[in-house]
Amino acid sequence: MNSEYKVVEAQPLAAFCRQVFQSLGVPPGDALTVSEVLVSADLRGIDSHGVARLRRYVRGLEEGIMIPTPELRLIHETAVSARLDGGAALGQVAGKQGMEIAIAKAMQSGIGFVAVQNSNHFGIAGYYSQMALKDDLIGIALTNSTPDVVPTFGRVVMLGTNPISVTVPAGEERPFVLDMSTAVITSGKLESLSRRGKKIPRGWAVDEKGQACEDPARVYANMRGKLGGGLLPLGGEGEDFAGYKGYGLGLLVDILSGVLSGSANTNLLYPKTPDGKPLPSRVGHFFGALRVDFFRPLNEFKKDMDDLIRRLKNSSKAEGRGRIYIHGEKEFELEEKYRREGIPLYIKVYEDLKAIAGERGIPFSV
Amino acid sequence: MNSEYKVVEAQPLAAFCRQVFQSLGVPPGDALTVSEVLVSADLRGIDSHGVARLRRYVRGLEEGIMIPTPELRLIHETAVSARLDGGAALGQVAGKQGMEIAIAKAMQSGIGFVAVQNSNHFGIAGYYSQMALKDDLIGIALTNSTPDVVPTFGRVVMLGTNPISVTVPAGEERPFVLDMSTAVITSGKLESLSRRGKKIPRGWAVDEKGQACEDPARVYANMRGKLGGGLLPLGGEGEDFAGYKGYGLGLLVDILSGVLSGSANTNLLYPKTPDGKPLPSRVGHFFGALRVDFFRPLNEFKKDMDDLIRRLKNSSKAEGRGRIYIHGEKEFELEEKYRREGIPLYIKVYEDLKAIAGERGIPFSV
Repeated sequence: MNSEYKVVEAQPLAAFCRQVFQSLGVPPGDALTVSEVLVSADLRGIDSHGVARLRRYVRGLEEGIMIPTPELRLIHETAVSARLDGGAALGQVAGKQGMEIAIAKAMQSGIGFVAVQNSNHFGIAGYYSQMALKDDLIGIALTNSTPDVVPTFGRVVMLGTNPISVTVPAGEERPFVLDMSTAVITSGKLESLSRRGKKIPRGWAVDEKGQACEDPARVYANMRGKLGGGLLPLGGEGEDFAGYKGYGLGLLVDILSGVLSGSANTNLLYPKTPDGKPLPSRVGHFFGALRVDFFRPLNEFKKDMDDLIRRLKNSSKAEGRGRIYIHGEKEFELEEKYRREGIPLYIKVYEDLKAIAGERGIPFSV
Repeated sequence: MNSEYKVVEAQPLAAFCRQVFQSLGVPPGDALTVSEVLVSADLRGIDSHGVARLRRYVRGLEEGIMIPTPELRLIHETAVSARLDGGAALGQVAGKQGMEIAIAKAMQSGIGFVAVQNSNHFGIAGYYSQMALKDDLIGIALTNSTPDVVPTFGRVVMLGTNPISVTVPAGEERPFVLDMSTAVITSGKLESLSRRGKKIPRGWAVDEKGQACEDPARVYANMRGKLGGGLLPLGGEGEDFAGYKGYGLGLLVDILSGVLSGSANTNLLYPKTPDGKPLPSRVGHFFGALRVDFFRPLNEFKKDMDDLIRRLKNSSKAEGRGRIYIHGEKEFELEEKYRREGIPLYIKVYEDLKAIAGERGIPFSV
């Protein structure tokens, strides 16, 4: 581990985040939820969605676009569905409640889907879909997010990296945990490569004219300045590598999270007043849970999941490759390692946490 | 239109296919369904899944792996779900029935999902998802398919091009119709480029060692000979362009279509007897339908869908590009054109239809 990193333990890291949220008026239970979701991202190596974002949540709460004691409200409810108004809560608070409702409905009725409006950034989608695993349900979590992605043949960002997460229980094998953005890369990765003066391959991003661009600094500056250009959807530029498929998946996520929930579609998120003050972000989510035994006996299903997973893992590897992964496997292994050895935090992130502690008068013992 | 094509009318083309299926013992209603699904693919320009496949269905029926008068049977049923045994029916027959059940359950209970086992190739997934539009439902159709796709870091085909289709109704605008394979390209496209002696870009396919390969003839020959290599999942080779996401989506489709239905996962499809005779293919499908008004009033939803679609279409275009498409739009326009001007069939496909007519003693007036 080089000096770019500081190794920290998960437990005190989460405890510190909890204190920060409580200091901002978030009730203890909700502060626990948000901290848990953030640290679970770091534990899985998804550091772009971990405590590195603490500053943004602090700012959101300070600015009043995230409400520490929100009023969550069911707008509509049936045996299999619900629409929840998140009351501009922290996304993790609205997200956890949304997924809990989907799970309860699935346990009762076999299937439950919940659309959440008027929420905020909820962290990693995989946290929510994996909540379904304890009850052996198939879990689904989607969200729209900050506009960062340019549609095929477009020039300006119109979609978020709008992630899709689906988890499926297995038997002796680990569950299948798909948790993917619908873009080729994240803006976090672009920013990091930009800082280090690297080039990026064609097919990751476009410039202000909508043309392929290999300079991440230029793309990142354009995006920050809202000058045009941005990330490309999964499949890359134009049609050669089927970028319209990633664009379609991102749009689908936006429809289910933004439109079906009655929230806003991506390009209406994060509105501001005429004089530039931020308004509630209006992020939307979509959660689902399905009981396997509403289709097929669970034990049979799990046995066949194990078989499928083993066949894939045992199939022939490409020359020079030692392993074929199942989705979620890398993250499970990283979590075990990080729980044992600690989480490597970027020193800049660590310093920022320390600064937040100072600003808020909270002892920093991470 | 050059001489590689013969322009034909949809109506006599479908009537001819119907006669062919009826001559093979398929009842009139089912023959109508299969013909309609096939011709609807040609009308939308998805010629890889249109009447070009007639020969394969004829062979499947002749070999007895597709049953002309199948016994479709509900293995399990609840208010929101069902598992259907397709009885080795033509995929279109089992597929249409599966989607009809999903739609009926959604109309009654708000949501319906149906997993279908023991079926066959069902043509374009978009046909089934679009069946939901007449009732203003969100429609979902997935299927597993012939193993053609190599998982990330793998060397042999373990997944099909396993398509995902989701349709969403809009108001004045056309509906959103996503209908995408989870691979970068189809084997049909690979074959066509191979025939014409073209090269393919890196990121489309791998050779028998699992390495990027720009020679489609080599990849196609390897695939036919089961020598290793094959198509790459959406996102391409390795991790640079996030090919593991396409691999994950393809695997998800296989889980829902193959495992949840109790059918077979992709790499167990199309089994043969020890002496090489084909056995029932065991293709699985997964269908879903959701009532919008179980979340939000339909008219509000449609209005916001129109708004989202218009925002996307009206957003700035990349330099050199005149138009941003919504998914399904190109196909709707092609269908209008082909209904007006006729469908351009590859002359080889046309000749093959004529040959089938001769073999089966059916007058050919397409």
